[in-house]
Amino acid sequence: MSDIYNFSAGPAVLPKPVLEEAQQDLLNFGESGISIMESSHRSKEYIAVQDEAEANLKKLLNIPDNYSVLFLQGGATGQFAMVPMNLLHDGKTADYTNSGAWGKKAIKEAQQVGNVNIAADCGDVRPCRVPTVEELNLTDGAAYLHLTSNETISGAQWKSFPTVDAPLVVDMSSDILSRELDISQFGIVYAGAQKNLGPSGVTIAIVRNDLAEAAPTNIPNIYRYQTHIDNGSMFNTPPCFSVYLVMLVTRWLEAQGGVAAMQQINERKAAALYDCIDSTEFYTGAADVAYRSLMNVTFTLPTEDLDKEFASQADAAGMKNLKGHRSVGGLRASIYNAFPEAGVGVLVDFMKEFERTHG
Amino acid sequence: MSDIYNFSAGPAVLPKPVLEEAQQDLLNFGESGISIMESSHRSKEYIAVQDEAEANLKKLLNIPDNYSVLFLQGGATGQFAMVPMNLLHDGKTADYTNSGAWGKKAIKEAQQVGNVNIAADCGDVRPCRVPTVEELNLTDGAAYLHLTSNETISGAQWKSFPTVDAPLVVDMSSDILSRELDISQFGIVYAGAQKNLGPSGVTIAIVRNDLAEAAPTNIPNIYRYQTHIDNGSMFNTPPCFSVYLVMLVTRWLEAQGGVAAMQQINERKAAALYDCIDSTEFYTGAADVAYRSLMNVTFTLPTEDLDKEFASQADAAGMKNLKGHRSVGGLRASIYNAFPEAGVGVLVDFMKEFERTHG
Repeated sequence: MSDIYNFSAGPAVLPKPVLEEAQQDLLNFGESGISIMESSHRSKEYIAVQDEAEANLKKLLNIPDNYSVLFLQGGATGQFAMVPMNLLHDGKTADYTNSGAWGKKAIKEAQQVGNVNIAADCGDVRPCRVPTVEELNLTDGAAYLHLTSNETISGAQWKSFPTVDAPLVVDMSSDILSRELDISQFGIVYAGAQKNLGPSGVTIAIVRNDLAEAAPTNIPNIYRYQTHIDNGSMFNTPPCFSVYLVMLVTRWLEAQGGVAAMQQINERKAAALYDCIDSTEFYTGAADVAYRSLMNVTFTLPTEDLDKEFASQADAAGMKNLKGHRSVGGLRASIYNAFPEAGVGVLVDFMKEFERTHG
Repeated sequence: MSDIYNFSAGPAVLPKPVLEEAQQDLLNFGESGISIMESSHRSKEYIAVQDEAEANLKKLLNIPDNYSVLFLQGGATGQFAMVPMNLLHDGKTADYTNSGAWGKKAIKEAQQVGNVNIAADCGDVRPCRVPTVEELNLTDGAAYLHLTSNETISGAQWKSFPTVDAPLVVDMSSDILSRELDISQFGIVYAGAQKNLGPSGVTIAIVRNDLAEAAPTNIPNIYRYQTHIDNGSMFNTPPCFSVYLVMLVTRWLEAQGGVAAMQQINERKAAALYDCIDSTEFYTGAADVAYRSLMNVTFTLPTEDLDKEFASQADAAGMKNLKGHRSVGGLRASIYNAFPEAGVGVLVDFMKEFERTHG
């Protein structure tokens, strides 16, 4: 079992010590005699869990006091609707960037709610990339500018964020906590947990309080950020077990040295794979070199048959879920925070050997 | 540890064999070498889990073919918004019943969406009860009639459902799968999982297909039942681990003999407590006898001090979370499907002894 490496794009690998602790405590949390899954969300046991998850996130990301950290449900897909319902009002227009599959989905949902301007569209550009700052065609007085910080499918990532007048709203599902950030440059940051934070079923939203306060009050209360701020993320029963895992994952991140330390490890892991890709013409990176993701390393082999053969042989050797998304093809190695560095070494060795035998 | 009985109203006790199986498989599901929490929702392992959960629910509740079973997020509170967003259109009015805290919340959220008629209001009647059929002041051509089948806080339950022209929409969060039902009498049944179905974080909606099809298309896609029907509950990443627990719980229910067998056990458990309450003037049931819940047995002692003393001594004796909700006071024993019959016997013995020493 120790030889399995899970390159899944999400839900994705979790830190092994986190899973071991969750397993150990599954029937008896904190000597309560019951499972954390069986505890009321109003119990002191659960409240301590959620409070620690929130405090850990604030510390890890150095979140300023004028932001709230919310534990929501519905994933990034849910946020695709909640963001415009809260921020796109008074006949304003929101600027959106299409950088690939996830940017496109965010746009489609926002168009159900209000006026959307596609400020830049490089969703179908190959090699894959995100927009340049120069390409952005911004609206005067826009409600906000929406970006997808890392396109999980294409493997393209914003390396820095543009400075604009409108609040910056960023889907950070696949790279939150993977690199240092200045949260004060954002209006809202949101992330489904199932890549860098925990299991699926909980969504983190980091919301600047003035934006939540200015949202319309004539929408269902459950879709208002302010409702969740006012109720400490307990307007509805939170997804307690998923929040508990987020607490354990953030505690684990602290123990690794925090986000700065994770960034160093992530840069090393990604560099090992990109160096291998660049050292030969046998492998081709799918993303533009300037926008290569630290989280999802996408590449192709000379033929689709070789892509398949590679994925199949890798799977047999214990490297799971390397097949790329059908819309991009090729291979994808998702190497989130919890993915062990040793697994990258195993994949690099496998890539070299595969090229030797099939090149 | 074996002496702990968890009377929590929700999140609530889960079947011990279910937790043991989840614990056993937590790091290695189905010999995949990875946790079910680390598996893609598109993996064959997870798809088999969700398919089985759906099939088990269809079998247990004998769900007709013209209904879809959906795994959603946001709890009953989320459904308070989704129901009117999908069904309350074309200037119609929806009839709602206020039978207590949950009915009231459903009404408040529906009023954010459209026209609501309070067809009956007995939310503050004492002893607690749900409306009678005769009390219902229905709207001609109503979009639907909304009921709360079991008021978790007051302990009042609909014993049978009214036959009306409009589709019946029922919040069944705290009594789904606890008694036999004819699903064909409902338009939509929904339930947060954290009482009778699994952990918090997943919501079951059983939706008659024609109602989903008729819903407006100009709302965010994630709030449309049809979107989730079309995508097999994978429009967004499902809360995989919670769905996995629902699969295990429904498998466990099948092994107990299904819903008919559970109903017999539930009737026996509730009768033991109500008999104890009725056998003396020391205890007073909070709900009207005709509407007493099989799931949440609410009662008071002669004074609030005695209520507190009872909860405190019971807690020390391993009977956890018996304190009633602050809005009703007194005590509440939540005895969902997974609550063991032996625990009811222990509570009855404790009640008799407490009366003997404090009566």
